[in-house]
Amino acid sequence: MTKPLILVSNDDGITSKGISTLVSVMKEIGEVVVVAPDSPQSGMGHAITVGNTLRLDRSSIFNEILAYECSGTPADCVKLAKHQVLKDRKPDLVVSGINHGSNSSVSVLYSGTMSAAIEAAIEGLPAIGFSLCDYAADADFSHITAWVKKITEQALEKGIPANVALNVNFPPITQGDIKGTKICRQAKARWQENFDERKDPYGRRYYWLVGDFINEDDGKDTDVEALDNNYVSIVPCKFDMTSYEALSHLNTWQL
Amino acid sequence: MTKPLILVSNDDGITSKGISTLVSVMKEIGEVVVVAPDSPQSGMGHAITVGNTLRLDRSSIFNEILAYECSGTPADCVKLAKHQVLKDRKPDLVVSGINHGSNSSVSVLYSGTMSAAIEAAIEGLPAIGFSLCDYAADADFSHITAWVKKITEQALEKGIPANVALNVNFPPITQGDIKGTKICRQAKARWQENFDERKDPYGRRYYWLVGDFINEDDGKDTDVEALDNNYVSIVPCKFDMTSYEALSHLNTWQL
Repeated sequence: MTKPLILVSNDDGITSKGISTLVSVMKEIGEVVVVAPDSPQSGMGHAITVGNTLRLDRSSIFNEILAYECSGTPADCVKLAKHQVLKDRKPDLVVSGINHGSNSSVSVLYSGTMSAAIEAAIEGLPAIGFSLCDYAADADFSHITAWVKKITEQALEKGIPANVALNVNFPPITQGDIKGTKICRQAKARWQENFDERKDPYGRRYYWLVGDFINEDDGKDTDVEALDNNYVSIVPCKFDMTSYEALSHLNTWQL
Repeated sequence: MTKPLILVSNDDGITSKGISTLVSVMKEIGEVVVVAPDSPQSGMGHAITVGNTLRLDRSSIFNEILAYECSGTPADCVKLAKHQVLKDRKPDLVVSGINHGSNSSVSVLYSGTMSAAIEAAIEGLPAIGFSLCDYAADADFSHITAWVKKITEQALEKGIPANVALNVNFPPITQGDIKGTKICRQAKARWQENFDERKDPYGRRYYWLVGDFINEDDGKDTDVEALDNNYVSIVPCKFDMTSYEALSHLNTWQL
């Protein structure tokens, strides 16, 4: 049997611990090709590079594995992988991550990790974004690798519905043993932002974005609830952003 | 009666013709405050600035109107506007644009214009992103200003459903008279990408992202269909990306 072809990307950059962990797991399942940013791209959302050139260079960081580093965003990486690196082959699966930090709830919108997965879904490829709720550069991924493998194998066996990318988040190791997985909806939570105002050495003001994550959603079926209770959360995400519920209200407008 | 407070942002930058047009229209309706990027941010998707400082400086570009230019992304601008510039007041409406170029169909995901509007929706503010299907820096907006005004007035009068931002796109002036508006869903179209590979003066490869827009959706209720037939398209967009249709399939997985 031919091994599945798995494209790996991320948003923390090709040298991060998360992508190295993901590559190790994927090597056990299939043939791996990596196209990842050459520098951290956290918070890049679904940004793409327009009006600027892109670099794409071979990397030997994963030894015998075919790997490229790209000057662009995670979405750029997937586009370059599909149309340049793998133009004569189609990946069986695209995986992104493992992100250093949570991408649950609305964070999916800001997430470069998930934008790589959603870009793959737009391109017609099954895709999963993996994130660990631990922002540390040296985060401990050891408690989740077996879960990453199991979820990936199920995705390959059962298939991911068309036009959907999975947003998979894992509790941090500090929460103790993972209880299992939950298929969830995105929680209606948000970041309560604040700006830390400072003065630079020349007397000019600047700001740091800081904030707290506020969950106003008390549903039992959300990703935040699953993670809080030490389950792996799996949210199917679609790229059709239409609010079908809102159509009838708008049709009452006088235009 | 108090005039409504309208926050204006965009992604083409504070000096673009599109935002200047939008400010002119909004001045007729309410009190206007502008917080916009200090440089073009097209294709930034829902990027936010994390791990870097942000600048926010007063701008006199719109004369007597309170305006700020920000070093960050469109989503950063809305965050800074809400939590810094307008921390003691709540805008009645957030408008973004007018974008130079289409944001119909999946372009909503890559769009900085729409990310400003969606960020506002996440923050609980009614929001509209306006885009003209003409990428030229000197695009002609004269045929759409009355429509922008009418749609904004209806939004203020009838209200935009909670957790929804409107994605409004206009046909270019070259298509002739606009026939009216259509409330639509996002078309299932995509960009068929290509990379134009070149060599720099030092012999190193680089790429330009180029592509064609392919509409594979023959529905009569899509934004692309409306625009092709010379209607203004209005799509309500939500930030809950959960594919509820996919939940039952995923529950059959053995995890």
